[in-house]
Amino acid sequence: MNDIPTSESLRERLGRIVGARHILTDPDDVAPYCVEPRELYRGATQAVVLPGSTKEVAAILRLANETATPVVPQAGNTGLVGAQVPDETGREIVLSVARLDRIRDLDADGGTMVAEAGVILERVQEAAAEAGLFFPLSLGAQGSCRIGGNIATNAGGTGALAYGSMRELVLGLEVVLPTGEVWHGLRRLKKDNAGYDLKQLFIGSEGTLGVITAAVLKLFAAPRGRAVAFAGLASPQAALKLFRGARAAAGPALTGFEILSRTGLEFVTAHLPGARDPLAEPHPWYALLEVSSARSEVDAQAMLEEALTAALEAGTIADAAIAASLDQAAQFWRIRHGLAEVQRHEGGSIKHDVSVPVALIPEFIARAEEAVIRAVPGARPVPFGHMGDGNIHFNVSQPPGVDKAAFLARWEEVNAIVHGIVAEMGGSIAAEHGIGRLKRGLLAEVRRPLELDLMRRLKRALDPNGILNPGRVI
Amino acid sequence: MNDIPTSESLRERLGRIVGARHILTDPDDVAPYCVEPRELYRGATQAVVLPGSTKEVAAILRLANETATPVVPQAGNTGLVGAQVPDETGREIVLSVARLDRIRDLDADGGTMVAEAGVILERVQEAAAEAGLFFPLSLGAQGSCRIGGNIATNAGGTGALAYGSMRELVLGLEVVLPTGEVWHGLRRLKKDNAGYDLKQLFIGSEGTLGVITAAVLKLFAAPRGRAVAFAGLASPQAALKLFRGARAAAGPALTGFEILSRTGLEFVTAHLPGARDPLAEPHPWYALLEVSSARSEVDAQAMLEEALTAALEAGTIADAAIAASLDQAAQFWRIRHGLAEVQRHEGGSIKHDVSVPVALIPEFIARAEEAVIRAVPGARPVPFGHMGDGNIHFNVSQPPGVDKAAFLARWEEVNAIVHGIVAEMGGSIAAEHGIGRLKRGLLAEVRRPLELDLMRRLKRALDPNGILNPGRVI
Repeated sequence: MNDIPTSESLRERLGRIVGARHILTDPDDVAPYCVEPRELYRGATQAVVLPGSTKEVAAILRLANETATPVVPQAGNTGLVGAQVPDETGREIVLSVARLDRIRDLDADGGTMVAEAGVILERVQEAAAEAGLFFPLSLGAQGSCRIGGNIATNAGGTGALAYGSMRELVLGLEVVLPTGEVWHGLRRLKKDNAGYDLKQLFIGSEGTLGVITAAVLKLFAAPRGRAVAFAGLASPQAALKLFRGARAAAGPALTGFEILSRTGLEFVTAHLPGARDPLAEPHPWYALLEVSSARSEVDAQAMLEEALTAALEAGTIADAAIAASLDQAAQFWRIRHGLAEVQRHEGGSIKHDVSVPVALIPEFIARAEEAVIRAVPGARPVPFGHMGDGNIHFNVSQPPGVDKAAFLARWEEVNAIVHGIVAEMGGSIAAEHGIGRLKRGLLAEVRRPLELDLMRRLKRALDPNGILNPGRVI
Repeated sequence: MNDIPTSESLRERLGRIVGARHILTDPDDVAPYCVEPRELYRGATQAVVLPGSTKEVAAILRLANETATPVVPQAGNTGLVGAQVPDETGREIVLSVARLDRIRDLDADGGTMVAEAGVILERVQEAAAEAGLFFPLSLGAQGSCRIGGNIATNAGGTGALAYGSMRELVLGLEVVLPTGEVWHGLRRLKKDNAGYDLKQLFIGSEGTLGVITAAVLKLFAAPRGRAVAFAGLASPQAALKLFRGARAAAGPALTGFEILSRTGLEFVTAHLPGARDPLAEPHPWYALLEVSSARSEVDAQAMLEEALTAALEAGTIADAAIAASLDQAAQFWRIRHGLAEVQRHEGGSIKHDVSVPVALIPEFIARAEEAVIRAVPGARPVPFGHMGDGNIHFNVSQPPGVDKAAFLARWEEVNAIVHGIVAEMGGSIAAEHGIGRLKRGLLAEVRRPLELDLMRRLKRALDPNGILNPGRVI
């Protein structure tokens, strides 16, 4: 074996809970659970347990609480801040919810689905669609992320503009507390003010306050028509103007508004197989717009055309392509969703997931680009994201040709520059990806002592022995 | 004086904080603060303090915490569960936020308003409208309720169908904790996952965890057109079918869907000056529909007509009137909003603010009506409310001619019948009005011990000395 401190008896007891087939201890077997997607964190674990029921999750946490064993909950392992992988000590066990993957119930009349934590987001979307309904959470990792993780991180994505983040899409939760007690909160109610709304505690707490095992999700009427356009613009200011016009013209029917810079588009066309620039000429900035109609595709097209015609006449946009088919619409969206992935082909990338008040996005991008390039000449900012939510992924690719490691060594320095501007503008350093381990030190800098103290009080109130995801968030 | 235990020195110290003009101790002056709208609770207080700033609120709570003085926060005093009035002991002081009534900021570009807790809801609506925007919270008491109370109770109302309850309309909060510490959380961000979302704790906690002093509210693009209809139906089943059709036809543009029974309409036309039945013939049930369009009034009318025509053809509705003018639309809404008030003209009324999964509303109404009339022959159920949210105000007016007090003496018995059915259907006994004092005993019956324990842990974590609104909620 190796030098990782292990406890044979603990493993045996865990094995009795989940069955020998569902506890992994071999280094090769546990390896995929120990590294996160960007490989910023590579940990070790004495065991990965894969419970098959809420009862088993409860037994695991009871045992962990008794033996002071730290537990790291993991869903799809797509999180970007290191909350879901074990640390380097090997002491932490990984509790994977991957086997909790049943859709327990789908009530088309009531517009609700009860899904277990391990159900993959895309399966939730598909099951809703099969019932003639719609689940709006949509993000790049939807083919592998699991709904429990989406809830634990209050995932945002591109649908948040019209439908809200994950917090707004959850009606009820089933949660195993760090003590092993099970909170049965799978309520299907749109309004319920009977005491404190306990589910709010667990949504977005990144697995530090409880392990979500199942959820009641809100389903929506499926739009009868969608129209998608890709517009070329001169600047983020123009994009903000276009956003306002489109929002005024379409109201809640504006279901998508994403922006990206020319650099981002070039990365996608260079590295994403089959991706093409939808417009004939290059433009400094692009916006992807989606309008959904409850009535018809014709209606969606009409709303979108109205918004674009007005913007063309006002000179807000330089050019635009409206998707002529579902396939073309999917291609436009593929450009946007591909952005997260293609950056790794351009060498090192220093990431920021930030938000500012919507009206300040152009100012933020201008200031951040200028400051970053001043600090790292040749660096290539790739800002993109959810303009309507004030949420920009301000990623910075290395200057071509320089040493990747040397560039990445400046991660904290570049972070400090960008987050300093965010702080001055009243923004957030963790808009939708959370804090995890990556930003835990930063949290202490941007939150006042009273706030950190309140968070610690909540943590202590729910996890008195501090066994659940310790060292993450707070 | 009287036999209420008072502390001269406490009053003096409070007076020094807020100024002599802003502390009330005379029985006549404090009386309006001691009784709630339905006069179910009539309390006493040693003093009502009206702080003029967040700093003064903090000083009051610091003093109260030091001297173990219980404090009851009060906003517009329109709550219906007794959370906002002092108890009968006279020990509790009332902290009114009425003087915190500034709109600190309105950012039309960013779609946010910073309002202090004492701003009356109607003023929030008006200020948004003046800026060409829209604040969707809408309820009967909007002319006197104050936004701090709306947040503390997570108010719902008729706009919740499309825009969500108050929880969904708040971006940030400023809160004074029971210890007198001020949490500065007035963030204007649509996405912010930097640590636990502390504001969620205070929203809906009915003044038991902190005193909200200001909030950042979300403003929306004002619809360019609205259309309102009043439809006559045979039954709640038909209303549910109409709701589904309208929702499918209009999607998020369906911004109102309320139901009421014939009894409710008769109460309104009998007691609300100027109110008339919008339809020529009587119907057992009615639905009020509102459709809003981002584009135009013509578009809103078209969507509404489409939905109604389909429903008439399918035999779902018997008749319908579409408001021909803004004035007529206001009259339709006045019928709905008048319902809460007119019941008192019909003698005693036993109230229930309940929710069930939307698809179960017809079954709930049928079962509850039958059970209540069996228990109290001649009693007149007046169910009405927010069908799309599964939220029914199942109020029961006394049989005509019987003694009001004798009828009201059966409050708990009738509650038990209705809430028993609600519990069987997985519903909530407190859908939008909260728990307060009225339902505190019931909460213990409908929530499991673990849930109550979790609520108590939160209460202790935030209010270790239990000075803030003790005996309410938990």
